[in-house]
Amino acid sequence: MPERTLASELKASVGRRVRLQGWLHNLRKQGKVNFLILRDRTGFVQAVASPGEIEILQGLQMETVLEIEGTVVEAAPAPGGFELQNIVLKIINPVTDVAPFSFHQKEFNASLPYFLDHAAVGQRFPRQRAILKLAASAVEGFRKTLRSLGFTEIFTPKIVGSATESGANVFQIDYFGQPAYLAQSPQFYKQIMVGVFERVFEVAPVFRAEKFDTARHVNEYLSLDAEMGFIENHFSVMDAVSTVIRGMLQCIRENISDEDRQLLELEFPAIPDSIPWIYYPEAQEMIFKRYGIDARGEPDLAPEHEKAIGRWAKEEHGSDFVFVPGYPMVKRPFYTHPSSEDPRFSNSFDLLFRGMELVTGGQRLHRYDDYVAALERAHYPVESFKEYLECFRFGMPPHGGFAIGLERFVAQLCRLDNVKWVTLFPRDINRLRP
Amino acid sequence: MPERTLASELKASVGRRVRLQGWLHNLRKQGKVNFLILRDRTGFVQAVASPGEIEILQGLQMETVLEIEGTVVEAAPAPGGFELQNIVLKIINPVTDVAPFSFHQKEFNASLPYFLDHAAVGQRFPRQRAILKLAASAVEGFRKTLRSLGFTEIFTPKIVGSATESGANVFQIDYFGQPAYLAQSPQFYKQIMVGVFERVFEVAPVFRAEKFDTARHVNEYLSLDAEMGFIENHFSVMDAVSTVIRGMLQCIRENISDEDRQLLELEFPAIPDSIPWIYYPEAQEMIFKRYGIDARGEPDLAPEHEKAIGRWAKEEHGSDFVFVPGYPMVKRPFYTHPSSEDPRFSNSFDLLFRGMELVTGGQRLHRYDDYVAALERAHYPVESFKEYLECFRFGMPPHGGFAIGLERFVAQLCRLDNVKWVTLFPRDINRLRP
Repeated sequence: MPERTLASELKASVGRRVRLQGWLHNLRKQGKVNFLILRDRTGFVQAVASPGEIEILQGLQMETVLEIEGTVVEAAPAPGGFELQNIVLKIINPVTDVAPFSFHQKEFNASLPYFLDHAAVGQRFPRQRAILKLAASAVEGFRKTLRSLGFTEIFTPKIVGSATESGANVFQIDYFGQPAYLAQSPQFYKQIMVGVFERVFEVAPVFRAEKFDTARHVNEYLSLDAEMGFIENHFSVMDAVSTVIRGMLQCIRENISDEDRQLLELEFPAIPDSIPWIYYPEAQEMIFKRYGIDARGEPDLAPEHEKAIGRWAKEEHGSDFVFVPGYPMVKRPFYTHPSSEDPRFSNSFDLLFRGMELVTGGQRLHRYDDYVAALERAHYPVESFKEYLECFRFGMPPHGGFAIGLERFVAQLCRLDNVKWVTLFPRDINRLRP
Repeated sequence: MPERTLASELKASVGRRVRLQGWLHNLRKQGKVNFLILRDRTGFVQAVASPGEIEILQGLQMETVLEIEGTVVEAAPAPGGFELQNIVLKIINPVTDVAPFSFHQKEFNASLPYFLDHAAVGQRFPRQRAILKLAASAVEGFRKTLRSLGFTEIFTPKIVGSATESGANVFQIDYFGQPAYLAQSPQFYKQIMVGVFERVFEVAPVFRAEKFDTARHVNEYLSLDAEMGFIENHFSVMDAVSTVIRGMLQCIRENISDEDRQLLELEFPAIPDSIPWIYYPEAQEMIFKRYGIDARGEPDLAPEHEKAIGRWAKEEHGSDFVFVPGYPMVKRPFYTHPSSEDPRFSNSFDLLFRGMELVTGGQRLHRYDDYVAALERAHYPVESFKEYLECFRFGMPPHGGFAIGLERFVAQLCRLDNVKWVTLFPRDINRLRP
């Protein structure tokens, strides 16, 4: 019996008998000819089935797991340009129920809630496969780029003894009778590890007990985190972000198939050699003058303001990305480093992608006394941060970092209407299953 | 001002003025000469400091963050063979307290509990840096090898609506007033995703509420998971495990520095082209006959039995690894596929590494009816698995997979006496911080 051949390998096997395995994706009758489409991890194969051979599928439904032996023949109209003839069918695992979706339909015809209820099979949709593969490439690109810049990968705990960012929005765990929490971010841990490796990154889930139910929030998501020491200021971090985003896009470009690219109608974003930036208060002035949107003096940007700044970046700089450095301190977390010129503003930034916040980053405080003062100002109990703060007592360099939400990056890149299309089995306020 | 030079780059800069940044690692006086050792992410640099220049360090302690400008000169006794002369020192961040460890001591002189209390600085120990870097390489090798075999990386939820493996040993979360759990493994999710990509892997934390406090348990650890479809039986999975372990070792070998290798006294394990295996009941017979250890008929192997099997593999096959396939069904989880020859035994296996269980894997059930029957036999409520089981109603191929505990792999490879040396900020029954 010949080794299993994959759909992508047909071309190399013209004229030979091969053995394929996969799912019954579609079945079409054209006159007296039955066309059977098999799906495997690499793509689709068309097979011509005789009436006798097709009988074996009697009573079976799409998604039946099959083995097909057949001869590879050139056939221009078939997917990939080849088809199987003189086939012998074997049922590996029969399906007798009708699946909740028609996977072979060109139009993606599922509503999001219905899709999520049945996500355990819904992810088989070719469009979903393409999205999830693209997400995997994005993560690979993130890691690869950072490794090339001398960053070391770390794995930090997700069960934590005290909440990092603030007391609110944390999930509480029963930890052997004690209260513990799910990490909202690896913030303190990645900072600690700057003292060890100078440059570190982590790819891991983070947990936010936010009661939002919007198109851009889930309660558990994948955070791509990096932190680096011996920086000048937040512009050093912005340089690293630019390199990383470019590396992620590059890795997607190298790995995506033509089919997936078409399926997603993927349009790679415009990213100039130097990503433009506009200082926070100037951005507010600019959108007022240019678009009549008055956000002057406000301590944070609303989605509408981000959209306007993104529009400016595209019109003026031909860029789908734009940095906004210099957010007011008042809306930034306590570990944010203030600007040396005007302490009301911070050495932190957001990166907007097609007018939506994608990355938040900045320079952090690095002196122990500054942490104690900042925690006291924010009315946090310094004592509960004692073990984390120890690293700052023993020599931390000026440092900063950033975090990218994977789901948001992919959703924005593929112009999806909800980040839940990117999240495998998303968690929201109403959804814990599958 | 010249760009920052790293410790590893000195050789290329002989005779030139360079600027280095890092931590004050050690300070030695030899006669009238002061030697200062600076540590950065790439290694160590020795600098000769004049009495005048050294005064700037008056009152400061080890770990002070420094910048040193100096001329690179060949000096055989210095680390790397080069040193800095005619230096100018600049304090980047002063340290005035004495650190809880002497990082420059050759002997690693910290007890584990004391080390863990101060892990936020303790991870700066050169030995700890070497362990954590090696762990990162192991993970990179895992991913790289699986990608080359056509596996797709996935990211599955850690907050789950029902416990996967069993009701016991799960951490409970308050999820907006509802009970939810921390995933003990991505088991069901990776199986679901076999229906999508055939071959998937995930690197992510798993959570076990086990009350053990042993040298090989932590309550949160990194699980390297893989699952693959269209297998023959568990031997197909064992083949994949062999390739992956080899790939992990290869990646470690390629990335580790000579210094780290010496520091860890690392001895790469013996791994023959084909890893030996011994069928579960035969292993019990063998250790009885050969070593007088009677475990015949017992449903599981104790550490002592594993040790004896490991010894046999080394003596008979020159291998530090040995597979034990065919564990009794009674001790394996409900989704385990029974042997087709004798249903009391399973198509599952363990891989022992130097006589300790490192990997568990096997073939899974793939038919819906088999799941319903197995769940009922195990007295699980079938209803609470409904959404997961949906994938089995719509065509799953024969499949199987495995999981490797990263901490255990690294601890065993480096012959460490406790997995907590490998875990960044471990969680155990008594420890939630830092």
